[in-house]
Amino acid sequence: MAEPAGLVAKSGIELLSAGTPNGHKVSVLLEELKEAYGKDYSVQSINIFDNDKKTQKQPWYTALNPNGRIPTIVDHDRRGFAVFETAAILTYLVRHYDPEHKFSFPVDSDDYSVSEQWIAWNQGGLAPMQSQANLFLRFSPHPEDHPYPIQRYVGETERLYGVLDTRLADRDYVAGAGRGRYSIADMSLVGLANTSRFSGIELKRQFPNVQAWLDRLLARPAVRRGLAVPDGPMRFANEVLERALNGNDEEEGLRRMVEEGDRLVRDAKERFRYVYASP
Amino acid sequence: MAEPAGLVAKSGIELLSAGTPNGHKVSVLLEELKEAYGKDYSVQSINIFDNDKKTQKQPWYTALNPNGRIPTIVDHDRRGFAVFETAAILTYLVRHYDPEHKFSFPVDSDDYSVSEQWIAWNQGGLAPMQSQANLFLRFSPHPEDHPYPIQRYVGETERLYGVLDTRLADRDYVAGAGRGRYSIADMSLVGLANTSRFSGIELKRQFPNVQAWLDRLLARPAVRRGLAVPDGPMRFANEVLERALNGNDEEEGLRRMVEEGDRLVRDAKERFRYVYASP
Repeated sequence: MAEPAGLVAKSGIELLSAGTPNGHKVSVLLEELKEAYGKDYSVQSINIFDNDKKTQKQPWYTALNPNGRIPTIVDHDRRGFAVFETAAILTYLVRHYDPEHKFSFPVDSDDYSVSEQWIAWNQGGLAPMQSQANLFLRFSPHPEDHPYPIQRYVGETERLYGVLDTRLADRDYVAGAGRGRYSIADMSLVGLANTSRFSGIELKRQFPNVQAWLDRLLARPAVRRGLAVPDGPMRFANEVLERALNGNDEEEGLRRMVEEGDRLVRDAKERFRYVYASP
Repeated sequence: MAEPAGLVAKSGIELLSAGTPNGHKVSVLLEELKEAYGKDYSVQSINIFDNDKKTQKQPWYTALNPNGRIPTIVDHDRRGFAVFETAAILTYLVRHYDPEHKFSFPVDSDDYSVSEQWIAWNQGGLAPMQSQANLFLRFSPHPEDHPYPIQRYVGETERLYGVLDTRLADRDYVAGAGRGRYSIADMSLVGLANTSRFSGIELKRQFPNVQAWLDRLLARPAVRRGLAVPDGPMRFANEVLERALNGNDEEEGLRRMVEEGDRLVRDAKERFRYVYASP
């Protein structure tokens, strides 16, 4: 498939994205807005792993997103206004296209600030730390050369899931009064939690409150659809890796990948005397 | 000095912080709000390096900031509402205490979204990546053992300053129409830029637009004051390190620290064939 070479839509939101937890923060919200309000959106898939083309570094793309990363949205219904950085995309979209606050809170409410706090916590904490864990554990050519970064970043990711687990001990959703209300604060986290096994974290065993919350989100059809944008369901979702571990022969390669990763994490933690602590 | 053991103020904003670039994002804004509007604030200094006390992990503190990090604010004028995560603190403060938009933009404007985008870019990019550079280059017991992470994180920090440098090529401030207008988007970045030399980045040589912008910010008395909260001017500010490099004998230790760091970064980059690219 040819890589995108410019914008293609004329109306609605145009999403430029890839099938990663960062991209999914936005596609889940766009699926919810479509279902709830009929808000139209289209998507172009950016192959961020194509080192020849580097679409996200091309001038037409960096004119929209000066950081040269995904995702980016362009709002064709508001004179092509472009937004980059997921935390800012989520709040932009609800300010303009969630007038009934189905997925957000009125901007002058304290709940709005609480949802902002958890989105910022994710943007500055969980998302970059889980990405660093992935980098050293999965995307480095020689992960066995990096035991110190592996135990540090898997460890920091664990600390952060511990913070989220405590938050969810007596609530169903991250923000909102009482037991909380489903909002962009949850959407910003779902793609990361849904691939935590790939990053060396076993939610079911380590963070049962996060697992229960994730199950709650995955029961929403719009969440399922959003997690498959733009290129279909994720190859490394927790469910897929669990199936592989439970002896599905066709997934032999995945099973070995997970077991090898677990071994690297265990050895690295032992070597540097890692002790779990949260917060 | 005894570590804080609970809240002490009865009115105004109470800031719980330490003298780091993350803490300074908030103290600079609080100094600006005080000067512009007379908004009252008080501060308690948290010694985040005291591994015995770990004040930021004590129950009274994590009840305010579940992540156990600095900074945190408590708004005694709004029933003790607590806010954690700098991106959320900055927007909370301007929504409630900058009615004339002297340091921000109306929430329904596109400029507001642009300022949000750059704050999110910092929260998810520059701040965590510069922190990782500091971790491996400065705070690790054996930095010479970590050439791969050093070239990666100093390199990623460089890439990000490159993005900021391009942004500032034809403007004075990060957000706002035309050449831009001073806002929380600039404040969120100033503490990091002001300690970039400590992180292995020479703004003057590498990123002159960022250096010119930093000089513009440092000319503001409130910025200078904010960068000294809570424990006085930073020992590792760019100016201090430059003075040490220029042969101030009293700063011999600092000079050696910078030169040793430069050597580690140079060797690490060479070994892993690092090539600067931005974005």
